[in-house]
Amino acid sequence: MKVSAIITLKKDVLDPQGKVIHQTLDGMGFKDVNEVRQGKYFEIDVRENDPKKAQKIVEDMCDKLLANLVIENYKIIEIQ
Amino acid sequence: MKVSAIITLKKDVLDPQGKVIHQTLDGMGFKDVNEVRQGKYFEIDVRENDPKKAQKIVEDMCDKLLANLVIENYKIIEIQ
Repeated sequence: MKVSAIITLKKDVLDPQGKVIHQTLDGMGFKDVNEVRQGKYFEIDVRENDPKKAQKIVEDMCDKLLANLVIENYKIIEIQ
Repeated sequence: MKVSAIITLKKDVLDPQGKVIHQTLDGMGFKDVNEVRQGKYFEIDVRENDPKKAQKIVEDMCDKLLANLVIENYKIIEIQ
């Protein structure tokens, strides 16, 4: 199954990259932006046909490698 | 409204970063992985209360700045 996960900075963690994108958008004429936050996205194809088990495996990967849980959160957004 | 977009490499574009993550997961004991693809995730808060218009604005940003349409696709995944 293909499991999609997003990893985002926690709400109170500064996101300098998002800020630069915000400024750039502003300079390009997109004036109605309040905030931009950037994150990571992973699509992981695991050899497991049970969606619950596949989700569990990817959550385990996020805990152990993909996310830095001190400053980041992760969320599984799709399993197909 | 907050619009969430993901940007992924097109199917036929090589993803060396995803490959390294795949190898690392393998080394950590996650043996049942077929493929890992990495992408970007953006959460953009725009001053626009109409969801359709907010989506349009963010699609415009993806076209003009956030995505490289030669090698990447984008998808709006959430508007809230």
